[in-house]
Amino acid sequence: MQNRLALTATVDREDALRYTPAGLPVLEMWLKHQSRQTAYGFDRDVACEIQAVLIGEEARKFSGKLAGNTVNLTGFLSQRSLRNPRLVLNIEYVEFVKG
Amino acid sequence: MQNRLALTATVDREDALRYTPAGLPVLEMWLKHQSRQTAYGFDRDVACEIQAVLIGEEARKFSGKLAGNTVNLTGFLSQRSLRNPRLVLNIEYVEFVKG
Repeated sequence: MQNRLALTATVDREDALRYTPAGLPVLEMWLKHQSRQTAYGFDRDVACEIQAVLIGEEARKFSGKLAGNTVNLTGFLSQRSLRNPRLVLNIEYVEFVKG
Repeated sequence: MQNRLALTATVDREDALRYTPAGLPVLEMWLKHQSRQTAYGFDRDVACEIQAVLIGEEARKFSGKLAGNTVNLTGFLSQRSLRNPRLVLNIEYVEFVKG
């Protein structure tokens, strides 16, 4: 069962680091993506916004350093919660895009 | 600028084939995904729903054949329209998952 998104995006906003009841660091952020995609034989400007979450040691490492930066992300999509169907990218890998 | 989603999903609902003003066949569908992902050292049940669109000859080829089936899809994410920020998967490749 595949579920893998690779996205280059700018971190528009980054929350303060928080912790789960079990003590895991959690960093939530909001991403903006813009690119040009070739689809069906013609070029197209593509834009989207998506919420993303980083959990664990990486969350602590990147906290406070992401907002305003462009990053390459990979991870999987899930709905926000049982009651909220909004899509969230669960980040498994993040790296800064060199400017 | 990366923007690539690979997703295994069940086609919950499929619209009737329609055509753009330029005559391109368009097939819209609604996907349901469920899987188990290993993240941050533990397994997690993941679910999401996303709208998807297939354009061109493949739309004609798959029209009427997708609903109820499980498929592997790859494509890119965009917002639905300038005014509607909802995420849509623009399908570039689709194949049936053998049952």
